Amino acid sequence: MEDFIDFRSDTVTKPTPEMRQAMANAVVGDDVFGDDPTVIELQEYAAQLLGKEAALFVPSGCFGNQCSIFTHVQKGDELILANECHIVQYEAGAASIISNAQLRCIDTTQTAGLLTAKQVENLIRKTDWIVYPRTGLISVEQPTSQGKVYPLETLKEIYEVAQKYNIKVHMDGARIFNAATYLKVEAKEIAKYCDSVMLCLSKGLCAPVGSLIVGTKEFIHKATKSRKMMGGGLRQVGVLAAPGLLALKEQTKHLGKDLEVIIRLAKNLKTLPFIEIDDSNIQINMIFFSITNPEIKSSELVQYLLEHKIKFGGASSEGVYRIITHFYTREKEVDYLYETLKTYLQKFQK
Amino acid sequence: MEDFIDFRSDTVTKPTPEMRQAMANAVVGDDVFGDDPTVIELQEYAAQLLGKEAALFVPSGCFGNQCSIFTHVQKGDELILANECHIVQYEAGAASIISNAQLRCIDTTQTAGLLTAKQVENLIRKTDWIVYPRTGLISVEQPTSQGKVYPLETLKEIYEVAQKYNIKVHMDGARIFNAATYLKVEAKEIAKYCDSVMLCLSKGLCAPVGSLIVGTKEFIHKATKSRKMMGGGLRQVGVLAAPGLLALKEQTKHLGKDLEVIIRLAKNLKTLPFIEIDDSNIQINMIFFSITNPEIKSSELVQYLLEHKIKFGGASSEGVYRIITHFYTREKEVDYLYETLKTYLQKFQK
Amino acid sequence: MEDFIDFRSDTVTKPTPEMRQAMANAVVGDDVFGDDPTVIELQEYAAQLLGKEAALFVPSGCFGNQCSIFTHVQKGDELILANECHIVQYEAGAASIISNAQLRCIDTTQTAGLLTAKQVENLIRKTDWIVYPRTGLISVEQPTSQGKVYPLETLKEIYEVAQKYNIKVHMDGARIFNAATYLKVEAKEIAKYCDSVMLCLSKGLCAPVGSLIVGTKEFIHKATKSRKMMGGGLRQVGVLAAPGLLALKEQTKHLGKDLEVIIRLAKNLKTLPFIEIDDSNIQINMIFFSITNPEIKSSELVQYLLEHKIKFGGASSEGVYRIITHFYTREKEVDYLYETLKTYLQKFQK
Amino acid sequence: MEDFIDFRSDTVTKPTPEMRQAMANAVVGDDVFGDDPTVIELQEYAAQLLGKEAALFVPSGCFGNQCSIFTHVQKGDELILANECHIVQYEAGAASIISNAQLRCIDTTQTAGLLTAKQVENLIRKTDWIVYPRTGLISVEQPTSQGKVYPLETLKEIYEVAQKYNIKVHMDGARIFNAATYLKVEAKEIAKYCDSVMLCLSKGLCAPVGSLIVGTKEFIHKATKSRKMMGGGLRQVGVLAAPGLLALKEQTKHLGKDLEVIIRLAKNLKTLPFIEIDDSNIQINMIFFSITNPEIKSSELVQYLLEHKIKFGGASSEGVYRIITHFYTREKEVDYLYETLKTYLQKFQK
Repeated sequence: MEDFIDFRSDTVTKPTPEMRQAMANAVVGDDVFGDDPTVIELQEYAAQLLGKEAALFVPSGCFGNQCSIFTHVQKGDELILANECHIVQYEAGAASIISNAQLRCIDTTQTAGLLTAKQVENLIRKTDWIVYPRTGLISVEQPTSQGKVYPLETLKEIYEVAQKYNIKVHMDGARIFNAATYLKVEAKEIAKYCDSVMLCLSKGLCAPVGSLIVGTKEFIHKATKSRKMMGGGLRQVGVLAAPGLLALKEQTKHLGKDLEVIIRLAKNLKTLPFIEIDDSNIQINMIFFSITNPEIKSSELVQYLLEHKIKFGGASSEGVYRIITHFYTREKEVDYLYETLKTYLQKFQK
Repeated sequence: MEDFIDFRSDTVTKPTPEMRQAMANAVVGDDVFGDDPTVIELQEYAAQLLGKEAALFVPSGCFGNQCSIFTHVQKGDELILANECHIVQYEAGAASIISNAQLRCIDTTQTAGLLTAKQVENLIRKTDWIVYPRTGLISVEQPTSQGKVYPLETLKEIYEVAQKYNIKVHMDGARIFNAATYLKVEAKEIAKYCDSVMLCLSKGLCAPVGSLIVGTKEFIHKATKSRKMMGGGLRQVGVLAAPGLLALKEQTKHLGKDLEVIIRLAKNLKTLPFIEIDDSNIQINMIFFSITNPEIKSSELVQYLLEHKIKFGGASSEGVYRIITHFYTREKEVDYLYETLKTYLQKFQK
Repeated sequence: MEDFIDFRSDTVTKPTPEMRQAMANAVVGDDVFGDDPTVIELQEYAAQLLGKEAALFVPSGCFGNQCSIFTHVQKGDELILANECHIVQYEAGAASIISNAQLRCIDTTQTAGLLTAKQVENLIRKTDWIVYPRTGLISVEQPTSQGKVYPLETLKEIYEVAQKYNIKVHMDGARIFNAATYLKVEAKEIAKYCDSVMLCLSKGLCAPVGSLIVGTKEFIHKATKSRKMMGGGLRQVGVLAAPGLLALKEQTKHLGKDLEVIIRLAKNLKTLPFIEIDDSNIQINMIFFSITNPEIKSSELVQYLLEHKIKFGGASSEGVYRIITHFYTREKEVDYLYETLKTYLQKFQK
Repeated sequence: MEDFIDFRSDTVTKPTPEMRQAMANAVVGDDVFGDDPTVIELQEYAAQLLGKEAALFVPSGCFGNQCSIFTHVQKGDELILANECHIVQYEAGAASIISNAQLRCIDTTQTAGLLTAKQVENLIRKTDWIVYPRTGLISVEQPTSQGKVYPLETLKEIYEVAQKYNIKVHMDGARIFNAATYLKVEAKEIAKYCDSVMLCLSKGLCAPVGSLIVGTKEFIHKATKSRKMMGGGLRQVGVLAAPGLLALKEQTKHLGKDLEVIIRLAKNLKTLPFIEIDDSNIQINMIFFSITNPEIKSSELVQYLLEHKIKFGGASSEGVYRIITHFYTREKEVDYLYETLKTYLQKFQK
C-alpha cells in the first residue's frame, strides 16, 4: 500500500519493481533505425496476442488512436463513432486537426457508449455522389469510457456492416484486456472484428509509458510513417518496451482481481446513505454513482478523502462520481475507502 | 411555361427576363479592388434586409457556409449542428478539410432537422480542460433540408444558450425568405437570433449564381480575407449582383405562391393510389412522399414523367420522393404533374 | 475610351458589349446537375484549345489553382514552385490550409519568376524514406507574375524531370494566351508540357468572372468533386460561360495589340526624366519601372494621375511601379499617360 | 567499448549505467494530472538552464518542433526557415499537416544551413493585405543539420528583425549544447535570441527518449494543450525524466570531447587516399567527406566496415558521407575507424 490510495483512474498506476528492474536492464538500440531488439520483441508479442500481422509502439493511447485514424483516412473522410467515446470527448479535436476527418457522432448516452450495427449502417454513405464525403472509418471503443463491454456478437455485426461497404474498423482498445477478462475470451477473439486496435500498456497494466497499435503489415508499415510525422518515432525505446512486455505477460493476469474488488466496493457503497449506484452489471474496473443529498459538496468530499490519504475525482458537471480500481487497490484499500466514506456520509444523517 | 417542367429542385430556376436585362446593363468594376458599385449596393441592401451591419457576396451557398465557418472557428474547435443538415450531408467534408472543425452531430431524424436548445447545450464544453476542444460554433439551418421551419422561440432559446457560453451561432439560411414567408415575419426577425447568416440569391429567388453572408462589420472584414483564400474573390461581379438585387427586391414576393401551389399539389397527391404523404404541416416549397406499391419502380416513373416533359428526382435509398416548387411551377404545372402521375399510377391498380 | 483609364491591372477590364449581350441571351441550366449547355460548350472548347481531354469552369484563377492543387496532392505532399509566383505570394496561404501541401519555394528574384529544370530536380525527393514527405506536384507560372515567358524548351525540360520521377506538373496559366502570343505558338503547344493548366477568362480577355482548369478526364472528374467541396459548384453558370466563350474566341486576338502598346509606352517612358526602365525584353502586357528622384512621392503621383482621369498603382515597398495594358488601353491611352507623366515629372527638374 | 562502434549518428547512444539506475529508482506520478515530481524537476531545471520561464517534456525532437510550431502559428501563417533544416527535410511534412503552416524556404546550400537576417527580412510580409498570409514564425536551427553554429551576432540580428515585425522565433536546438560548447557560452546566451527552443536529451546527451521545449509560461501553458492534442501527454514519465536530468547535468560536460575527437578524426582522414574533406572549420561532432575514386562503392564500404564491427552510414544521393561522434566514440574508436578505412582504401591504390 502506497502513501496515498488513488481511485481517480488506473492511469495513476506506477511501474512494479519488476518493471523498474526490466527498464534498468533493457537491451536497447535506436528504434528509428529499427535497431531496438526489445521493442521488436514487444511488437511481435503484441501482434501475436491480438491475432494480427504486426504491431507498432506509440507513446500514448491518444497517439495510437490518432495515428491509426491518420493512417486509415483521406482528408475529409467521415469517421463514424459514439459521441461519448474518448476520441470525441478527450482528444482535443485531434482527428479534425491532424487527419481532417469529418466526425459523425452517434448519441450513446442511453447505452453507455455502445453502438449498434444499425446505427452505424444508417450513417454510411452508400453512393459516391459529388457532394458526399466518403465514409472512411468506423471506430468502436472496447470497453467504452462508460465502463461497458461490447458483446462479441455486436462487434461481429458492426464488422460485417463495415465489410459490406468496404470500410475499415478501428478499435480503441485502451483497456481491451479488461474487456477480454469480462468476456472470458482471449483478446484476439475481440480483435478479430476490427482492422486495427490501439491498446495501452499503462493504465491497469502498470507500465509507465506506452501503447501499441496492431493491424496488417501494410497498415503498420504506413503507420510507421504516420508515427514519424506526428513526432512519435523514439530512440532507445527498449527502456519502455521492457516494462511493456511485463505488462502484457504478467499484469494482464491481475485484471480479474480489479473487477472483483470494484464489485465488492459497489455492493458496499450501495448500503451507504445518499449513494445512488447501479451495481447490477459491472463489467470493468470502473463504477459511477451519484450522491442524492445536496448538502454534500463534491469539493468538500474530495478534500476530506485527501486528508484521509485517498485521492478521489470530484463529481462531473452532471454530478456523477467515478471510481476506478487497479493493481494497487485491493480488498484492504476498497474497504478503507468504504469505511471512510461511510463515516463522512453519516454526518449528514439527521 | 418552359419546355420541361422541373420539380427536382428550386436550384433549377433560370433568370427572369428582367434579370437578364439587368445583367446586360450592370454597372461593374473590379470587386477585388472594391470598385464594383452594383455588388456594393447588393451587399448594403442585404445587410439592411437581414438587420446586420454588413454583407459579402460569395459564389454559392456551400461557399458561404464554409467561409463563415472558417471565419468563426479556430483549428479543432467543435461545431454543433444537426446530423441531417446541408453542411454535414452535402458539402463534401469541407468543414473538416478547410476549417479543421470537429463536427458534433445531433440526430434529428425524428424532428426533420430541427434542434432544441437543450440538445445544443448538452454538447457544449463547459470547461477549458486540456483534453477538450473548444466549442467554436453552433449552426442552425432555417428552414431545414427536410422542409421544416424553426419557430422564432426555438431560435431564441438556442441563441440564449449560445450567448450564455459565449459561442457564436451561424444560420444556413439558404431559403431564409421561404421561412420568413411561412412565419409571416421579416427576415431580420429570424436573423436576429444568430451572428451570421448565409442566404442564397438563386434557388427560389431565380438569380443565376450567388449567395451572401451577413454579420457584424468585423466578421465580414475577416470573411473577406477568408473568401479570397478560398478562391471566391471575383472581378466584375456586378453582372451577378444586378440580378441578385432583383432576387431580393422582387422575387421574394412570389415565395408565398410557391407554398400555396405545393400545398395544392400535396392535397391532390393524397387522393392518388399508392401515395403516402403527410399534407398536414407543409411549411416551405418542398414535399416528401412514398409509393407503397413495390411494382412501381423509381427509374421507370422518372422515365415516364420525362417523356411527358416533367423532370423529376428519383426515390432516395430510403424510398422517399421529394418535390420542390418554384417561380416556374404554378397551378397549371402542378396540376399537370398531378394528372400525369394519376394516369401512371392507375395502371398499377388491378 | 471610358471615364477613367485604368493601368492598375488587366483585371479591371469590363465585359464588351458583345459579352453583355451574350450574358443576356445565354441558354442556361443547373450546372450542379450537369444541365447547363453553355458551360459544357465552353469547357469542351477550352479543352480542345489547350489540347487536353477535359475542362472545368471555376469562379476565379485563385480557385482554379487551389482546386488543382487539392486534386493533385495528398496531405503533406511537397509542392515545388517559385517563391515569387502567385500561389505563394497572393493566395492567402490556401495551399497549406486547404491541401496541407508543404511548399518548397525556390528563390527566383534574379530570373523574374522563371525556374530551371535543375532547380526543380534538386528539390525532388528521390527516395521514399520514412522521414520524407512525398514530392507531390511541381507548379510553373506561365507567364510569371514578373512578366516573363518560359521558353518552350525550359518547360519541356521541367516536364521531363517531372516525368522521370513520376510527378505531376500544374501550370498557373492565368495569362497563358499572352504567353502564346509572345511565343507565336498555339496555347496547346505550351500546355503540352504540363498535366493541368489554370487559365483565366477575365483579365486581358475581358470576361467579367471565371477561369478554367484543364487536364485529363480523370483529373477533371476528381476536380469536379474538389470544386464542390470548395464551394465552387455554381448553378446557372451559362451566364458566365457565354462571355467566357467570347473571351476565348474573340478577345485572344487582341493580345498582340496589348503587347504592342506596352512596348510603345515603355520606349516613351524611357525618354522621361527620373524614370529607370528596362525596355529591352518586354514579353507580356506588363512593365515595371522605378523613379530615381526621391522628391517624387508615390502617393502624390497616384493622386495627380487620378485627377487626370488615370488610375495607377502606387510603388511597391521596394519602390517599383507596375503598368499593365489591356483591351481598353490603346495608343491614345498610353500616349495620354506618357504626356501626363511627362508634365508631372518635368516639374521636378531644376 | 561496445560490441559495435556506431558512427551513423549520435542518436544511437545508449543510456549510461547511471541513467539506467536513475530510471529504476525514479519517483513517478501521472503527469497528465501533473503528479510526476521528476518531470517537474526536469522541466524547472531545463527552463533555468535555458534562461526561460518554463519548459515542457515531449517525446521527441520532431514532436517538440511541431508542437512549438502548432502553438505559435495560426492556420495558413507563413513559417520562414532554411530549406536544408530538419523541419523541412526530415519531419515528413508535419508542419503542413498539423499546423497548416505555409513554408517559406530559403536556399542555404552555400552556407551549410545558416540564414541571414536580411534573407529573413526579405520574406516577411510587411503589410496586412487581403491576399497575404501572415508571417507567423521564423525558425532557426542551432547548430544546423550541416554542422554549422550560428554566431551569437547573427542570431541577435535575426531576433531583432523578428521583433521589429512582431514575429516569434523558434529555435530547433536539438544539439544546442554542442553549439554552446563550440561558442564557449552558456546555452542561455544562445536561447535569449529566440522565443522558444526545442532541445534533445537523447543524441549526444545519451538519454534514451525525450526532448524539451522551453519558452514563456504562457507559451508552455498553450503548448501543454498542443502536446495533448498530438498524443504526447504521457503518464509516469518520470522514468524518462530521471535520465534526462542526468543528460543535462552530467552529459553536457562531455560534448567538448565529442568535438575534440571528430577534429582528430578529420585530420587523420585528410591524409587518406581518395578522401576529400574540409577539416578547417569543424564546429560540432559531425563531419562530411567525399570519396573521389568511383571504384569505391558506398554499399561495399559500409559492408566492409560492418564486418569490422563498425556501423557507418552510406553515401547520400550526392555522394556525401557523414560521420558523427558521441560519448561512446573516443580516441580509441576514431583511431580504429581511421585504421580500418586506411586499410580498405589502400587496396584501391594501383
